[in-house]
Amino acid sequence: MRLTRGTGPARQATIREHNLSMVLDEVLRADEPISRAGLAAATGLTRATVSALVDELVASGLVAESGRSQSGTAGRPSIGLVASPHGPVGIGLEVNVDYLAVAAVDLAGQLCYEAVVTADQRGVPPKEALGHAEGLVVDAVTALAAADRTATRVALAVPGLVEDHLVRVAPNLDWHDVPIPDTIVGLPLIVDNDANLAAQGELAAALNRERGSPVSRSFLYVSGEIGIGAGVVLDGVLMRGAMGFAGEVGHVAVHPDGPRCGCGAYGCLEQYAGQDAIVRAALMPVTGQTRGTIADVVELARAGEANVIGTLQDAGAALGVVLAGAVNVLDITTIVLGGVVFAPLAPWLAPAVQRELDARVLAARWSAPHIRASALGERSTVRGAAEMALDAVRHFPARFIGAR
Amino acid sequence: MRLTRGTGPARQATIREHNLSMVLDEVLRADEPISRAGLAAATGLTRATVSALVDELVASGLVAESGRSQSGTAGRPSIGLVASPHGPVGIGLEVNVDYLAVAAVDLAGQLCYEAVVTADQRGVPPKEALGHAEGLVVDAVTALAAADRTATRVALAVPGLVEDHLVRVAPNLDWHDVPIPDTIVGLPLIVDNDANLAAQGELAAALNRERGSPVSRSFLYVSGEIGIGAGVVLDGVLMRGAMGFAGEVGHVAVHPDGPRCGCGAYGCLEQYAGQDAIVRAALMPVTGQTRGTIADVVELARAGEANVIGTLQDAGAALGVVLAGAVNVLDITTIVLGGVVFAPLAPWLAPAVQRELDARVLAARWSAPHIRASALGERSTVRGAAEMALDAVRHFPARFIGAR
Repeated sequence: MRLTRGTGPARQATIREHNLSMVLDEVLRADEPISRAGLAAATGLTRATVSALVDELVASGLVAESGRSQSGTAGRPSIGLVASPHGPVGIGLEVNVDYLAVAAVDLAGQLCYEAVVTADQRGVPPKEALGHAEGLVVDAVTALAAADRTATRVALAVPGLVEDHLVRVAPNLDWHDVPIPDTIVGLPLIVDNDANLAAQGELAAALNRERGSPVSRSFLYVSGEIGIGAGVVLDGVLMRGAMGFAGEVGHVAVHPDGPRCGCGAYGCLEQYAGQDAIVRAALMPVTGQTRGTIADVVELARAGEANVIGTLQDAGAALGVVLAGAVNVLDITTIVLGGVVFAPLAPWLAPAVQRELDARVLAARWSAPHIRASALGERSTVRGAAEMALDAVRHFPARFIGAR
Repeated sequence: MRLTRGTGPARQATIREHNLSMVLDEVLRADEPISRAGLAAATGLTRATVSALVDELVASGLVAESGRSQSGTAGRPSIGLVASPHGPVGIGLEVNVDYLAVAAVDLAGQLCYEAVVTADQRGVPPKEALGHAEGLVVDAVTALAAADRTATRVALAVPGLVEDHLVRVAPNLDWHDVPIPDTIVGLPLIVDNDANLAAQGELAAALNRERGSPVSRSFLYVSGEIGIGAGVVLDGVLMRGAMGFAGEVGHVAVHPDGPRCGCGAYGCLEQYAGQDAIVRAALMPVTGQTRGTIADVVELARAGEANVIGTLQDAGAALGVVLAGAVNVLDITTIVLGGVVFAPLAPWLAPAVQRELDARVLAARWSAPHIRASALGERSTVRGAAEMALDAVRHFPARFIGAR
């Protein structure tokens, strides 16, 4: 966190906010309930300061005393602190091409609510799609209220280029320059590219899992859905690029003179490894149908259906060609496969992707790329969005405390 | 610059070093000779502190009084300060596939010495090539001494993957795990990838030219030589990747089943837009020869030779396909074409590159990529290396002052 300069009183407030965030962060990162003494040791603040800050965090419902005793510095039992099980939740909302999803997560990283509605959004006017999404948020807020949880903010994920509160283009939704309101159901609303939000959710999950270890602080999160996008995370920070449009791997060419893509260019990765391309190539020769679900593809792959396995190898090879290019440019060693297509199909896609990486990445011998499936599974985007909706609480807890 | 924490005296020394660097930086960045009062205003240090620091910089030969008078704060004439015309120089050294080069640059950005020797290094043992390069440094140091200039450090550029003082692989030189000594001709020696050094040289030139404007602080520097590499500069910082191997655009596939590359993969960009590929395709039908120089290609292109122009359009299109992929991933808007192949051929390559970028970059409408030729021309790599050799003087001037 960056401290901004200011005059006396403003500076005091900023330091308090910074210290509150630091103490909250240590509570959230601790493997088990942490004592006030433990927090003082971890943050370098005095015990008196820590106690005052903890009192505020407890009074505001962000932190709770666990009641469990823990060995203190002198062996005495002390009160452990944890993220409050009744604290604020962040709501993630996803408008994707063939489904809408909503999820709520709390400061402990617990999933408090999740709903997915299969509904093709192609051809649906943006206003109507957003209205449908709003309905899902109303349902979520109602269910959360019944469980005594309060939502703080909503983060909307869309499969396209986002600039502030404007979706410049979402090719597979056919959205162009769609403005997104500042609030939804009375809650502040933020909006970002789906792969960016998923990558940040993946980062939060990795940091949560690995407790501050430097492992997995740099990775390329690749989201496979009807469209394909990526989030580039370098040393724990999402790389957004000049205008926030980084990570568009779905429109990198596999074969520059390949089939025409919805974006207008030729041979884009989406034409080889996007959901429609995979479903069509995998199911057509088996079922005679060009449409179907990823669950159908998974089932046939599990059954060892040769055409389906071959299709997934081809899609994996195309994905591998593009990711090898990205790795040659970025020298990132971890690739995470996520989204409703790549997460469940990772077992069949990954070997072909790895083969291309090994063959095509110049530095592969010394900086070996490896692939893993998303820790958040198929729902990484909406959960990542929920995590991001909570970010303001984590970084600026003072805003959620009565004193503000 | 990052201040490291320390005990009292060490901390004092660090602050002095930081302040010396800050004052030197202001002298180097100023458009015209700057007064002590001007330095105090620019740095926020007291005039007494500035005067003491300037005295040290002048005594050590890093800064000189220009003698020119300048209007001071109260309209009185004051003494202007400039980078010393007899100050230290950095030496850049380049071992490339078909030439060796050396250049020396001073703190004012003046080129003090430059020499290029055409000599094919393919098949030459690394020890022998480095011995040849050492001879060039001896010549440079001798010539500089005659002009009363002292070299501080040498930076060696090689077309390959570099890890500390080890060249992991330089495919076109056929170097594998070649150790690089810590010193050369008694001077400290650093080594880095050629495109990385060129990108940093380009950044130094841009900052020097644009005097701190944020323009051009993010760009993709693409070095076209026998091999093709890139340096990714994000907000003024070279992105090195996990192991320092970022920017390998030469081994990104144009056609995944294209011709085999020296790296072992298929269809790499070097096979379409590397020097050998361009020279062969451009000259063969015209001269019946597969070998020749880029100067020959430039001459024929200037004369409007259709086959040559067509070859450059094809090479530019292949380059554009790969750069469109990189821009889709990075969302970088400025592409700089440099190196002995791309800098002189930029007028013929750039239109085809731009066409592919416009067609293939999803965000092109809102984050328009544009192309320019390197500010340092064909010699960007060796000059960039010389700039980097001087970096220690700029950042740690105290080390070059007698007191240390």
